[in-house]
This record gives sequence, C-alpha cells and structure tokens, in this order.
Amino acid sequence: MFRNAKNVGYYMIGKGSLAQLDDILKARRALVDGPAIFFLDHFFDGRDLESRLPVAKGDLVLYVDTTDEPTTHGVDAVTDRVKKHLDGRTPCAMLAFGGGSTLDTCKCAANLLTNPGRSEDYQGWELVRNPAPYKIAVPTLSGTGSETSRTGIVCNEAKNLKLGMNSDFTMFDQVLLDPDLTATVPRDQYFYTGIDTYMHCFESLTGNYRNVVVDALSEKAIDLCKQVFLSDDMMSDDNRERMMIASFLGGMAAGFVGTVHPVSAGLSMVLHMHHGIANCYALSVQEDIYPEQYGEFMAMMERQRISLPKGICDGLTDAQYTALYEGSIVHEKPLSNRLGPDFKKIFTKENVIDRFKRM
Amino acid sequence: MFRNAKNVGYYMIGKGSLAQLDDILKARRALVDGPAIFFLDHFFDGRDLESRLPVAKGDLVLYVDTTDEPTTHGVDAVTDRVKKHLDGRTPCAMLAFGGGSTLDTCKCAANLLTNPGRSEDYQGWELVRNPAPYKIAVPTLSGTGSETSRTGIVCNEAKNLKLGMNSDFTMFDQVLLDPDLTATVPRDQYFYTGIDTYMHCFESLTGNYRNVVVDALSEKAIDLCKQVFLSDDMMSDDNRERMMIASFLGGMAAGFVGTVHPVSAGLSMVLHMHHGIANCYALSVQEDIYPEQYGEFMAMMERQRISLPKGICDGLTDAQYTALYEGSIVHEKPLSNRLGPDFKKIFTKENVIDRFKRM
Repeated sequence: MFRNAKNVGYYMIGKGSLAQLDDILKARRALVDGPAIFFLDHFFDGRDLESRLPVAKGDLVLYVDTTDEPTTHGVDAVTDRVKKHLDGRTPCAMLAFGGGSTLDTCKCAANLLTNPGRSEDYQGWELVRNPAPYKIAVPTLSGTGSETSRTGIVCNEAKNLKLGMNSDFTMFDQVLLDPDLTATVPRDQYFYTGIDTYMHCFESLTGNYRNVVVDALSEKAIDLCKQVFLSDDMMSDDNRERMMIASFLGGMAAGFVGTVHPVSAGLSMVLHMHHGIANCYALSVQEDIYPEQYGEFMAMMERQRISLPKGICDGLTDAQYTALYEGSIVHEKPLSNRLGPDFKKIFTKENVIDRFKRM
Repeated sequence: MFRNAKNVGYYMIGKGSLAQLDDILKARRALVDGPAIFFLDHFFDGRDLESRLPVAKGDLVLYVDTTDEPTTHGVDAVTDRVKKHLDGRTPCAMLAFGGGSTLDTCKCAANLLTNPGRSEDYQGWELVRNPAPYKIAVPTLSGTGSETSRTGIVCNEAKNLKLGMNSDFTMFDQVLLDPDLTATVPRDQYFYTGIDTYMHCFESLTGNYRNVVVDALSEKAIDLCKQVFLSDDMMSDDNRERMMIASFLGGMAAGFVGTVHPVSAGLSMVLHMHHGIANCYALSVQEDIYPEQYGEFMAMMERQRISLPKGICDGLTDAQYTALYEGSIVHEKPLSNRLGPDFKKIFTKENVIDRFKRM
C-alpha cells in the first residue's frame, strides 16, 4: 500500500510577504462569517508583531506560552478558550505565528474544534475523523517543518509520551514564508531549530523506510542546511530565506526519522527540553550510529560558534534515568528504521542510559 | 507582489500504485454522483491499459489523438463530446493517462466544462474564472511536468500561437505516479520528453525572474535528470522512478523559461513538432546562449545514443521561416528572462532564422 500524500494547499514566499496576509485573510472572511483566531508565540507579547497583523473586530488573539513544548493539558485549555470565543461559530481562519510549538498548538486545537474529546485521544496515526477549520502558518522560526508536516506534536505527561496527531487534517491550508520574521531570533535558538531539518532529513535518508519523493526533498533540504550552517553567517538575509525553504521541504519529507528523534523525545519528556536543542544533544552521543552526520554537525556547530554545555543529565535519580530510557525506547518505528527490528539488542537500557550520562 | 503558489492536492508514488486508483476513485464516486471521464493517449488504444482501469458503467473513455500537440479546435471538440456525455451532470473525476498532450487536453477540457466559451478565450494568464471539476493525472510519460504545473498548453493555429491556460484551476487535484507505466515508452520519446524537465529547470535557474522555492525544486530536478541521463540505462526501474520525480518537481518549478521554449514553440506551430524533441532542436542551436547546458545536453544525448537528424528546416519557404521566427519572438517574457529587455537586438529576425536553418 502506497501512501496518498497530501500537500499544503498554497504557499507564498518572499521578504516582506507578511504585508500580503491581509489579502489572503480577506478572501477567507468573504467565504466564512466567523472570526479569525490568531496564535502568537509569547515571544511577541509586547512587541510590534500584533499591530502589523490584519486583526479585525471580533477576532481572538492568543499568546501561546512556549516556555515548554505543547502538552495535552495545555492544548486542551487553549481549545476551551477558543471554543468559548467562537460560541458555536466556525472561524474563517486559524493563524499561527511562531515556531513548531505555536504552529503545533494551532494545528491540534483546530482538530479539537471539529472532533470530540481531548487532545490525548488523537495522539497517534489517522485518529482524527473530521476536517479541521482552515489554517494559515506563518513561521517566525525555521526548522521544525511544522508548516508543511502532517503532525502536531504534544507531550502527554501522564503517559510519558511525546507523540503527534498524525493526520492529513492536521495540515495547514496556507503557508506564508517571510524571512524578515526570523531576523530577531536569538542565534542559539536559530541554530537549534534550523538543525532539526538537517536531523530529520538525514534520519530519513539513512533509514529503511524510504520513498523517492521523500528522498529527493530530504536531499535538497540537507543541501540547503549545509549552505546555511557551513557559511560564515547563518543568519544573513539569503540564509534565513534558504533556511525557510529547507524547513518547508523538510516538513514535506518528515515522518521517517531514526534514532536521534527518540532520544530527543526522552529529553523533552523528562527534562522539558525543547525539541531542537534536544536533537542536538541526542546526536552528540550517537557518533557510532551516524558517524558522517555527527562529524558534519560538529563542523556546523564550530562554524557558527554554538556550544552544548555538558552535564545536563548529571545527578539525576535512577527513576529519572529510567524515564529517559522509557521515553526514548517507546518509539519503536523510528528506532527500527535505523537499527532494524532487533533494535533493543543495540539500544539496551544500559546503552541508552549511558548515552544520556555522556551528554 | 509575491505569488500565492498552489500545490497539487495529493500525490501517490510507487511501482504498482496504479492498483490503488480504484480506492481513490471510489472516494470520489461516494461524493459526486456523476460519471468519471477517462482520457487515454491513443498509444493505449488496443492495448491492455483500459482493462486495468476502474471504469464503471456510465463512465466515458476517450482516446486522445496525440499525433500532433493539442490545438484549440481539438480541445473544443473533445469538450463538446464530454459535455454531451455528461448532459448537465458534474463528473466525479476527470482522469488523464498519457504525456503532456493528454494531460493538457484533460486540464483544458475540464476548465471549459465550468467556464463559458471556447478554449482560445482562456489562452493567457488568470482568465479562467470558475473552478474546474476534480482531476487526476496518471503520467505514462515523464518530463513535461504537466502533472503539477498550472498550465495546459494549446496551439492556436489561426493565431500562430502556442500558449497555455495558466490558472490555479488548471491544476490537477491528485497525481498518481506509477513507474511501471513508463516501461514501454520508446527510447527516443522517453529521452525527448524527459529532457524537457532539464530544459525548463535550467532555463528558470539562468533567468532573471527567480524565487528560492522554484530554484530549490529546479536544482533538485536537474540533479535527478543528470543521474538519469548520464547513467548507462536511463530506463532502468530506478531511473524511470527518478524521472517521474524530476518531472513532478520540475512541474512545480515551471513557469519562468528562457530562450529554448520560445524557439521550440515556433517549431511546434509551424512544423507540428512535439514539444520535447522541439526543445532538443532549439537547444542544439543555442550553444552561445547556454554553453554549459549545451555541453551537458550533448553528453547526455551521446550517453543515451540519441541523435537529432539534421536538416529539418531545409527547403522551407520564406513565409515558413517568417512564421518560425514570429512563432518564437512572440514569447517576450521568456526571451527577456534570459536576454533582458533588449532581446530583439540579439534575437533579430535574421539571427533566429539562421538558427532554424542550422537545425
């Protein structure tokens, strides 16, 4: 059985393209009578982004706290707030301005507007039954690929499980890519997030589950990441634009990750570490599994003068080490993608905990 | 103003994926009560393709004569036949099985089902007003990119004009890519058509109108073309799959061609030459304009043992030479894309006719 892959409906790219968002939204308002719901990363609270957006009377603007990654409880709470505002109406559009956390919060909340229950009911594959309202992604941080991917990742604390709502309905209908919006991202965060594209693309290319379209997109995204991170200034105007494309293509290719993402998920669950930097730590202890990419990654870190402080797992309890292991090993499909069906013979509890201790 | 680029809605790729067309079509039949309209390249008339397709009672199967490229008259005639069969009903799907000629015929006829008038009324940009019925592309020949492009090219004999219906409504909703379907293509035709992707992608990359998404997709498509055409067997299973992806990506990137396509259009109008081989002749006399690509193209021809017989424009009348020139020079946007606004100083009548005489 081959997968019928859905594409993002429309995309616009260009420096300054945010100015055209009004036209796109006007077309939606003409079609649907309900308000627009804006999700903004709390980074923009008190800054000038909101004043530049085409917010109309009756719309709702929500600032999403992205201190930690989205949780099932957090998404449920946001959904309740949106439902209360909508009072039974259909939104003309739901718009997300931020990185993966903000975009994923918007994606998941949208699914919950048209599907009964709570967010944890939809963690998995093809569980969403009804189409979500129309959604627009405006990334202000590049790398996760959330703008084009079919997942919205949430952390389920009770289950110690980081898992997405994987569904065509989770996808955005429109993506707007304006590289001006990533000019103010802190350098470290820009690197940690951007490198996520490099990570999930090489994991896909070195795995057992392949397909030629995903391969082609991944190869191109990796090519762009190398141009960006092996250059002198990863945040030049041209490089920020390149990074937006890499993320966009990487998101289309996402889905078949390897052993970096599971270890990263463990860190996010137990240490509440953000996805991008968690990926960096995960790869930093997998020189035996991905020797070539490990070397390339280290060269990129050096070129961009990014460091990963050591000792992040020092002094944890045995229970916490076990939780780190369990939060990683649960991701059987990605682990077997790289290590084969006998992955537990390589990724033993001791082996995995030893890797965390080396971080 | 940045363009809001539309994507093909869904795509499926894989050797043998044609077997899943039934599922895709069933979902459409459940939604819309009308018949399915199948357009098949006449190459398949009397072969076994039709018997493998999910044709139901009441559907219409049309064989498209692709001896020459689609004309406004031809498309109008096909449209009339489809309208008569539909008798006011909406088709659940319009499906095209073939190369660019068959796919474009399907795209243009679909536009004419929901928009009044004749095909020549829509040759140009953004002239189509109403959405077309749902359409599925199943390429059996790779290279034109028609499966993902927003144009449907038709030749207007009365106006000596080869020009497409450029519109988001022209695009397919679903693409199904099964490399098994290109196994029986004659070698020459496989090369001439596949190389179209290489041509329109390098023309885009060497032009003045650029954008980073189109650049990224074009670069990847060219990369795949080189892998295919510089290998020992361009028609191996893997290479036919690669060529399908290259065409798919190239179609997404299409739109900003250079000086190859205008000269090729002249050949198609006056000598009724097919697009792919016409492109080859066009590049074969532009070693001064595209020296690097000319050399690469010659190496590909040699590797694949493809030849272009000389003398195709020998013995034409002056009126025919003038028509060749006029059918080329009318494409001002592509010509200025490569040669700048003063393109007529380089592409004088004498210069252009001399190129045709060298073919």
